[in-house]
Amino acid sequence: MTYLDHAATTPMLPEAAATLTEALGRVGNASSLHSAGRRARRAIEESRETIAQAVGALPSEVVLATGGTEADNLALKGLYWARRTADPRRTRVVVSAAEHHAVLDAGEWLAEHEGAVLDVLAVDAEGRADPAALKALLDDHGHEVAVVSVMWANNEVGTVNDVAALAEVAHAHGVPIHTDAVQAVGAVPVDFAASGVDALSLTGHKLGGPVGVGALLLRRDTPCTPLLHGGGQERDVRSGTLDVPGTMSLATAVRAAVADVDRRTTTLTALRDDLVARVMAEVPDARLNGVPLDRPGERLPGNAHLSFPGCEGDSLLMLLDARGIECSTGSACTAGVARPSHVLLAMGLDEDLARGSLRFSLGHNSTAADVDAVVEAIGPVVERARRAGDALARS
Amino acid sequence: MTYLDHAATTPMLPEAAATLTEALGRVGNASSLHSAGRRARRAIEESRETIAQAVGALPSEVVLATGGTEADNLALKGLYWARRTADPRRTRVVVSAAEHHAVLDAGEWLAEHEGAVLDVLAVDAEGRADPAALKALLDDHGHEVAVVSVMWANNEVGTVNDVAALAEVAHAHGVPIHTDAVQAVGAVPVDFAASGVDALSLTGHKLGGPVGVGALLLRRDTPCTPLLHGGGQERDVRSGTLDVPGTMSLATAVRAAVADVDRRTTTLTALRDDLVARVMAEVPDARLNGVPLDRPGERLPGNAHLSFPGCEGDSLLMLLDARGIECSTGSACTAGVARPSHVLLAMGLDEDLARGSLRFSLGHNSTAADVDAVVEAIGPVVERARRAGDALARS
Repeated sequence: MTYLDHAATTPMLPEAAATLTEALGRVGNASSLHSAGRRARRAIEESRETIAQAVGALPSEVVLATGGTEADNLALKGLYWARRTADPRRTRVVVSAAEHHAVLDAGEWLAEHEGAVLDVLAVDAEGRADPAALKALLDDHGHEVAVVSVMWANNEVGTVNDVAALAEVAHAHGVPIHTDAVQAVGAVPVDFAASGVDALSLTGHKLGGPVGVGALLLRRDTPCTPLLHGGGQERDVRSGTLDVPGTMSLATAVRAAVADVDRRTTTLTALRDDLVARVMAEVPDARLNGVPLDRPGERLPGNAHLSFPGCEGDSLLMLLDARGIECSTGSACTAGVARPSHVLLAMGLDEDLARGSLRFSLGHNSTAADVDAVVEAIGPVVERARRAGDALARS
Repeated sequence: MTYLDHAATTPMLPEAAATLTEALGRVGNASSLHSAGRRARRAIEESRETIAQAVGALPSEVVLATGGTEADNLALKGLYWARRTADPRRTRVVVSAAEHHAVLDAGEWLAEHEGAVLDVLAVDAEGRADPAALKALLDDHGHEVAVVSVMWANNEVGTVNDVAALAEVAHAHGVPIHTDAVQAVGAVPVDFAASGVDALSLTGHKLGGPVGVGALLLRRDTPCTPLLHGGGQERDVRSGTLDVPGTMSLATAVRAAVADVDRRTTTLTALRDDLVARVMAEVPDARLNGVPLDRPGERLPGNAHLSFPGCEGDSLLMLLDARGIECSTGSACTAGVARPSHVLLAMGLDEDLARGSLRFSLGHNSTAADVDAVVEAIGPVVERARRAGDALARS
């Protein structure tokens, strides 16, 4: 099997799986006061320190959560509610047009349901949010904005935003900024403090940890209304019994992934560049979407996103799958949805080209053999998808 | 070690741990369309069927979530928002005074933040919500009520409510009812369809499954506004990447725990009754809180909740812990909080007695030796806690 869908979920790192397995035998709720509870609490706090250190945060800034979707929803809704409560004029929510649905749909819900006005910041043809465009928006409406959210790196086309520049613009207008960094942590260098953002989402299963565990990094001085009420476990910002084995495993994975960023960058960039060059040689009218490969720092190393004119992405996906190659047409979270990707449309692709797109995402265990398999298959697969498309058009 | 804090979290069942460990090697996001994704989806749907069958629900009624806190928050807020949207007059939220903070605090937040009026339904001296009291409230205000939430079984004193009777009252007034059954599933018979409730929370780590995985059972015809927006994975009511290993393990645990209810009831009732009788013999002025033991169907089999006049619960807990016995003063989620339990106060205990309480909660691997250990320790421990209390009072 050739697995090239690491951006949807990546296999667990052996050390993270071992940590989780060993910890399953532990007993005790980390909120309990007895010895087992205190041991569980210690494991949580050590894990929190490990995570914090790996991503340039303070331990007290790590709000444990169940993954990217919860962290994104908590950031968007929590910062919006807290800011609006402090100043009722602040009802605008700014998100980039290329955000994951966890941010975009949370923003839309705030607009439909909670009296927000949603400003969708355009992205350029490479999928990038422009700090100058954010500045223009905030120059006009800064005093009405409750929160800005722009992703660190895009999940479909791999474009890396200039998060520090965006944060500087937001802060010049006194607006807190959140970034969804679930695709970035472990793939590119991420430093919470240096980035200047107020809140950052990360999740285990995108970096070799378990599904169902993640965190919102949240500055101590950034008020955030809880989404989940209850025991008040995480700074009263997030309630719910802490997952001791999952958090320990997350910490192992974050540490290992971050320590491996340099090696991965070198290895995956080489594999990815080879994949793109050889696929383009097989299918000369294929088109690479996102940032050109000669500007590697601006694109996730493992991301290759290509459009194949005259093809349906779903047909390509299924034909490749039949040959043992697993990839995606875009976000797994919208798989099966008939609409073309909102990210590609926001980048200016026409609907047909957007529909004929594939994302190959490489990860920690990708090899040259994976690339060879794609290169061998892609020509016949595109050929067959085009014939199917033509037949459909004639019928 | 004598672990008698199963109500806080119970050790994983070996078969549930094995399922989880084996599944960690699986690859694939259950939303992905390729073979690995479809295998992951199949595992999720088989797990959903297993869970549904064990608790008398339809597979389509199982909304996978990350545990009790999320399920409770989703039910309270989601049903409130959906019902209020359908009929703006419906702004009242009714919860019992003995609810877990995940329900109580969610209700309070709706009142403070979302325009709700919170009605807290009194409980009797045994901690029970009275269907007649609910009827009286709904006779007066039924057309203004958005949602009712009353727990299946109380986490502190183990009182089992007559959920079916409460559901009948709610439905007679056209009001949806949710029940937090995290303490009930696997401990007493729970049948979602037969109970008549519209929504029911369950969680893995209270029944021998993993932490961080649970479900909200939700009738298909019950509108519920999402709390987490994004990929729309669970009927568009709940978004977030599905945890395949966790869900498979949850299903194993739910099936095993439910199949074991009869045996556990017999075993734990006998152990618990023995523990209470012998502790009372050692400390004659101790008082059992909740339902008397001669009405076993109305109390969780594994729950023994006792007050020791003249003692601080935290002192008792620590003195027992020093002797290798782990129990709690109440909910782990409020451990370390200086206030006496809201549940005990709602039952009419005075503050001093409420503060001097311990919860011993037995579970699937409890033994007669555990009971012997408590009986041996409790006399000296209470003696010593009383001397400490006296010294404090004199100082």
